[in-house]
Amino acid sequence: MGKSKDSQKKTRRPHNVIGVDLGGTKMLARMYRVARDGSGDVTAEGRVKASTPKYGPESVLNQLVEVVKELDDWKSADAVGVGVPGPVDAEGVVRHCPNIVGWDDPIPAARILSEALGKPVVVANDVNCGAVAEHRVGAGKGYANLLAIFVGTGVGGGLILDNKLVPGERGLVGEVGHMLVEPGGRPCGCGATGHMETYAGRAGMVAEARRQAADGSPNFLVDLVGDGVIKSRHIAAGLEADDPLTKSLVALAADAMAQVVGNAATLLDLPLVVVGGGIADRLGQSFLDQIAESPRFGGFGAGVTRLVLAQRLDDAGAVGAALLAFDSL
Amino acid sequence: MGKSKDSQKKTRRPHNVIGVDLGGTKMLARMYRVARDGSGDVTAEGRVKASTPKYGPESVLNQLVEVVKELDDWKSADAVGVGVPGPVDAEGVVRHCPNIVGWDDPIPAARILSEALGKPVVVANDVNCGAVAEHRVGAGKGYANLLAIFVGTGVGGGLILDNKLVPGERGLVGEVGHMLVEPGGRPCGCGATGHMETYAGRAGMVAEARRQAADGSPNFLVDLVGDGVIKSRHIAAGLEADDPLTKSLVALAADAMAQVVGNAATLLDLPLVVVGGGIADRLGQSFLDQIAESPRFGGFGAGVTRLVLAQRLDDAGAVGAALLAFDSL
Repeated sequence: MGKSKDSQKKTRRPHNVIGVDLGGTKMLARMYRVARDGSGDVTAEGRVKASTPKYGPESVLNQLVEVVKELDDWKSADAVGVGVPGPVDAEGVVRHCPNIVGWDDPIPAARILSEALGKPVVVANDVNCGAVAEHRVGAGKGYANLLAIFVGTGVGGGLILDNKLVPGERGLVGEVGHMLVEPGGRPCGCGATGHMETYAGRAGMVAEARRQAADGSPNFLVDLVGDGVIKSRHIAAGLEADDPLTKSLVALAADAMAQVVGNAATLLDLPLVVVGGGIADRLGQSFLDQIAESPRFGGFGAGVTRLVLAQRLDDAGAVGAALLAFDSL
Repeated sequence: MGKSKDSQKKTRRPHNVIGVDLGGTKMLARMYRVARDGSGDVTAEGRVKASTPKYGPESVLNQLVEVVKELDDWKSADAVGVGVPGPVDAEGVVRHCPNIVGWDDPIPAARILSEALGKPVVVANDVNCGAVAEHRVGAGKGYANLLAIFVGTGVGGGLILDNKLVPGERGLVGEVGHMLVEPGGRPCGCGATGHMETYAGRAGMVAEARRQAADGSPNFLVDLVGDGVIKSRHIAAGLEADDPLTKSLVALAADAMAQVVGNAATLLDLPLVVVGGGIADRLGQSFLDQIAESPRFGGFGAGVTRLVLAQRLDDAGAVGAALLAFDSL
């Protein structure tokens, strides 16, 4: 009522939003065209990659502005979303990024980027962006409540309740990797012991493989890479080769995941848990089956909570950030 | 705009709401006067108690209508809230009540009571009502996010996020008692093993005391009551008497609570956990201190999440139900 035809047209067209996924080693910017209801059609239109600078947050933010401006027609974007590997508050202040050199103190990234780009900018935690991506345009489509868990070097997660991302007071909701599963167990990077990611994360599995190699016993994974990096594909190769150590590492990972998934599902009455990240992508459905069949997958989640593989792989962070930017319009 | 002076006056007066707490053995109805903003002043005005009938849900609902009608001036109430010991969906259908004889199938309790009383009726899970009570008029006042855990015969909980109760898809959010803490541990009433309430709930502690008494070793708690019921006050007496068995039972209870509180706080980035129920009321602050000092209280909750005792004791269920009824107006 009272709106001109012109403005009606404007609000009806799809929004162009840019999503940027900022990682410890590289960043990826994409342009997305998002249908007005925000849930359905999302088409990616451009793609620019760059290395993440190692000279502190200022250089990182400058590079981020560059990759956005390298996208064709970037000026047409209504907003920009950025997923970052660290905790972020509701105002887009990034507390710190453990995997980005020099980003040890809070930086008002949303404000800085918004000024540099002359557009609204939303900054959110990258794992939360991944959860939004799976909820809206991935494996969780149609579910109002879900937990998305990403199993990579470490393990993180993002929580959707009643169709909304739950960020938490400090932006730390979903830190499933630091839930305790084994009192007095393996040492965690955070200083505690027995946390889930020390069993299910790649770093935890690798550390255990190297510990076991230290006594000189045969070790498929260490033999495979020598002093090199044991990656998710090597773990998959160990399973393929029926290597007992790899099988035991993955079984412990599945048990740790099962306990956390079952407990989160019990606490939150969850119908769906989406599992993604490098380890899950490589090991695939059989890893999920192993989690669901673990005796540790219990509580009120067992038999009710579905476990599914994530669908958005490389672009989960970018498209999720773009959707959060879309939501802010 | 357009409202008569009369109707303005009407919306400004405090609401009268009735809250009923339905338990396995008794029910309690109270009239509350709730200030219009719903958060501040709540005054209780009347109180009627009755035994819970043991002839199935119909008799229970009839008795419930009776206790409401016995409240002075019950007709002045704008709405009625009822807390029940079982899972409830968003429409007020009670799925079942394990502790009420014959309530094994879903009953549309809200609709039945609303027709009988001629007033809006909200039915909710009693533990969720307790969480609402602590959040709005108890130990959680001023916090937007909290978990309330009630440690009695079993252990249940209710979750508040962004100032709202989170009921979950099946009305089962907050079932912390069935989170797994000890794989392969004590048997749980639900058929699984190692759930938190088998260590922290009174029934679990009592079962362990009786198991240990079976071998004939000295047992303070069993000696105290013989074949009678070991209650929370006997556990408190055991601690008072420095009884080693009681002390070990309570230490295991604190460890189990610590693991669940730490993990829930980590998953949900919680600033506050309120602990109530018979065991917590009896053992008091020293029980909370023991939880907070347990090595199992870790994750991202340690050092950040405050643990406080519940403040609403006998009337938590009733006032919480009344506040949920108030919210529906």
